[in-house]
Amino acid sequence: MIVVIQCTDSVGLVATISSVLATANYNIISMREHVDVEENMFFARIVVDASEDSKNVAQFLTKVLPPNAIVKINPLPEKKVVVLVTKEYHCLSDILVRNHFKTLGAEVQGVIGNHPDLKNISERFNIPFHFVSHENKSKENFEAEVISLVHAYNPDYLVLAKFMRILSPAFITEFMLKIINIHHSFLPAFIGASPYKQAYKRGVKIIGATAHFVTNDLDEGPIITQQIIPVNHSFSLADLVKIGKENETAALAKALHLVFEDRVMVYNNKTVVFD
Amino acid sequence: MIVVIQCTDSVGLVATISSVLATANYNIISMREHVDVEENMFFARIVVDASEDSKNVAQFLTKVLPPNAIVKINPLPEKKVVVLVTKEYHCLSDILVRNHFKTLGAEVQGVIGNHPDLKNISERFNIPFHFVSHENKSKENFEAEVISLVHAYNPDYLVLAKFMRILSPAFITEFMLKIINIHHSFLPAFIGASPYKQAYKRGVKIIGATAHFVTNDLDEGPIITQQIIPVNHSFSLADLVKIGKENETAALAKALHLVFEDRVMVYNNKTVVFD
Amino acid sequence: MIVVIQCTDSVGLVATISSVLATANYNIISMREHVDVEENMFFARIVVDASEDSKNVAQFLTKVLPPNAIVKINPLPEKKVVVLVTKEYHCLSDILVRNHFKTLGAEVQGVIGNHPDLKNISERFNIPFHFVSHENKSKENFEAEVISLVHAYNPDYLVLAKFMRILSPAFITEFMLKIINIHHSFLPAFIGASPYKQAYKRGVKIIGATAHFVTNDLDEGPIITQQIIPVNHSFSLADLVKIGKENETAALAKALHLVFEDRVMVYNNKTVVFD
Amino acid sequence: MIVVIQCTDSVGLVATISSVLATANYNIISMREHVDVEENMFFARIVVDASEDSKNVAQFLTKVLPPNAIVKINPLPEKKVVVLVTKEYHCLSDILVRNHFKTLGAEVQGVIGNHPDLKNISERFNIPFHFVSHENKSKENFEAEVISLVHAYNPDYLVLAKFMRILSPAFITEFMLKIINIHHSFLPAFIGASPYKQAYKRGVKIIGATAHFVTNDLDEGPIITQQIIPVNHSFSLADLVKIGKENETAALAKALHLVFEDRVMVYNNKTVVFD
Repeated sequence: MIVVIQCTDSVGLVATISSVLATANYNIISMREHVDVEENMFFARIVVDASEDSKNVAQFLTKVLPPNAIVKINPLPEKKVVVLVTKEYHCLSDILVRNHFKTLGAEVQGVIGNHPDLKNISERFNIPFHFVSHENKSKENFEAEVISLVHAYNPDYLVLAKFMRILSPAFITEFMLKIINIHHSFLPAFIGASPYKQAYKRGVKIIGATAHFVTNDLDEGPIITQQIIPVNHSFSLADLVKIGKENETAALAKALHLVFEDRVMVYNNKTVVFD
Repeated sequence: MIVVIQCTDSVGLVATISSVLATANYNIISMREHVDVEENMFFARIVVDASEDSKNVAQFLTKVLPPNAIVKINPLPEKKVVVLVTKEYHCLSDILVRNHFKTLGAEVQGVIGNHPDLKNISERFNIPFHFVSHENKSKENFEAEVISLVHAYNPDYLVLAKFMRILSPAFITEFMLKIINIHHSFLPAFIGASPYKQAYKRGVKIIGATAHFVTNDLDEGPIITQQIIPVNHSFSLADLVKIGKENETAALAKALHLVFEDRVMVYNNKTVVFD
Repeated sequence: MIVVIQCTDSVGLVATISSVLATANYNIISMREHVDVEENMFFARIVVDASEDSKNVAQFLTKVLPPNAIVKINPLPEKKVVVLVTKEYHCLSDILVRNHFKTLGAEVQGVIGNHPDLKNISERFNIPFHFVSHENKSKENFEAEVISLVHAYNPDYLVLAKFMRILSPAFITEFMLKIINIHHSFLPAFIGASPYKQAYKRGVKIIGATAHFVTNDLDEGPIITQQIIPVNHSFSLADLVKIGKENETAALAKALHLVFEDRVMVYNNKTVVFD
Repeated sequence: MIVVIQCTDSVGLVATISSVLATANYNIISMREHVDVEENMFFARIVVDASEDSKNVAQFLTKVLPPNAIVKINPLPEKKVVVLVTKEYHCLSDILVRNHFKTLGAEVQGVIGNHPDLKNISERFNIPFHFVSHENKSKENFEAEVISLVHAYNPDYLVLAKFMRILSPAFITEFMLKIINIHHSFLPAFIGASPYKQAYKRGVKIIGATAHFVTNDLDEGPIITQQIIPVNHSFSLADLVKIGKENETAALAKALHLVFEDRVMVYNNKTVVFD
């Protein structure tokens, strides 16, 4: 069982928490704790040897912790996710394969695409695909259609698996800290459009990918994980894009694994990752 | 201040420890805990916001923990080390530079070489160098000379910085878990002599280096850290050796950093590394 | 167009080859050349600006090069491959997805499994799956069935994507240097069975995977590529296996990419890889 | 012997070059060639089995190659370098140690510092140190003093080993493509001042270092090599700086190795690196 806690820090907090666990006769197998001293915030991820919270420690913890405490006890019902895509298959296929073999750590409920290209691969894995074109309609109307589809699933997370539309603040606010994006650059390098083209022109020797939560500041949300891959002068722009996709797939897979195992906590536009 | 604890595990151990810390009004800034479930052993590294143990928690902890508990409270007096070398300069120089600029996290007391080659570099940094030839004498006599020199310094650790003599069980027992070696291969690949030659013949695409504590089973002690570096068909054996040295230097530096910050705990021929 | 040449070395060989290319008015865009001085063998991979060998340089080159010369001119008809599997899905799924989206650089003709587990995923991608049980029959008979199926496809390469049966010398000889295997360790560490279990017991800090051509010396064939992934004390054996699969998938994908682009040449149990 | 050639591309160029080498009876051991198709520029690095250019191929090559050809034949007299520093010791010490043991691939002639801090370490290795304060004088006068000192040495390269002054266009023009800098970020991320502080605020999960030639566009010169190191939420700004220095040292060492072995060619603000 995983116990995840985030709250204002104070002396004795670990003693308080671990006493509650000891009273319930839960043994702590592994514990990671971090205090952001500047912000006076406490973060902990505790693995205990119980399979479910039969002693109701969640309730006891909430009583003894500060009012701003966020307490999560696992096993949550398995996370549910909706995936948003455009045309590129690499991230979605990786997610669909893991989902199919029950190793994603979450359940893919549906895929929404603003192009129909990935309907076929989704349906090969028996996952519903919803084509919502963004053409000939306002962004507001496009997003309203997507939001309506998403709400029908009521997922824990939205995964932008190379979804190439910029979302409005209204959309993002609707799903705050529930949207995970894979950005095809080593943020904050190459913010904005065509990062591989920018990287090619600059002659970089390493390209990166960044998985992050989406907030209202484009490409500025809390970073979950970053990965890189070395490149050299012999790479054409097409080669950069091609090898970059391998990197994007791996970075998004890593980030989803971390989030679905409740290893990622967010505060003040940064993440604490107990990996 | 760092609190490091290793003992038999039981329910409530974190509560016990953190209560002692809370009673002393020490706030926990960062905590890493791990239980080896198979061995029922508990390991923890706790950073608290005190600079020294004015409240004597070490004494309190020892009272409430199991009899096999190892408790270390920092700031220890800075670690002291003696370095053993043969002819290769790369690891020793790196250590001497860091020592000189006070960033090693330990104090180099002296260097002992079974060849005189590194006397010059040691003395450039005002570190005493002792040449103890292994020629024309028994291993027993050679080691007795070295042991005598080491005991005069009474160091916390012996660092084998490319010391190319195999130490006897008697020597190793004398300094059990105090000897850190850098092995020039990705152990357990290429155990024994000439690992780069073996790697060259095998046509590997990656070479490694392994920093480990020395025990009586040659090349079989607890591993602290391992690093690798990619190679290819264009590397001659000499090239492998050359690039391998970069890797050895980095791996040993990393291991020493971890050990000197009390981030490494040993149990049952494995390490727990809270990095 | 890719020109790949392997032959005995001599002074003037590059001049001879490049003159043939210049006479045909093919411009060299990129060239990698390597001489194994110990073996006096020459290896080259040349990219020229023609899309097909309309000037018949292959014929001219064969005339002017030593008798042992191997000359390959691209675009070959796309490579064809048959994949052998047991139960684990990760490598096969990755291959099937790339094949489906035409980015594998080869065409998967069929999958042969000694267990039926991966029939479903193969058929989801419209790839024929052949279940050949190894039970209740001699190795000779089992392999005869497999060989018969493979011959019906006549593939360029056999990919062992976590095929967990040891092949006989007769089988390997039948497809010499056409069989690519992914081994779940950093060879030559942990040769043989259960490498992750060996790694777990040894307490290594890095695990590896090795893609290699299969020869009659088990786990001793020419290495194409090796990849690693860091691990630590918190990894259970199951965790090592899980993260190891990510590494295996990536290493095999990399190796297949290199082989299918004619970047790998084999000589004397080593590979030359012009990556 | 190394032959390095850069010139306008044309069909038959490799044939022309390799014929000259064959006529001189030089055997090609290893060859790397690259054509920048967009720029129609040819780059090659050829290793031949002669130790010196006794047959005068340099002269023959210059005759048969286009007028813009740059031809370099090794062994050049060993490169000579002057190092510019401020206060941080890590890059300079690494260079001084390699220089001392004759493994730098170049000779350090002198060190110039705008602070006196690194005089001691330089002199420990018998390298002249020149303190040129930038205080109480114009940038023009400061640079004039430095230029005068550099000209007295007439080095092949100036290495900025954490030299924290921005150089004027006049200075840079004086030593165009001879100045190598180590920038403490993964360019183009965090251009400008305090990159670690920027990285800390952004919550990145990887930090980088970039070695590049210095041109008049600050932080925009041709990149030679980039290296990264993973970080996490537990790193304070001071920790980022500390681990970043390890990365800077390694990246600069790698870049110098590549440049001193004539593996780096520059064209159009990018590098071709035959590593």
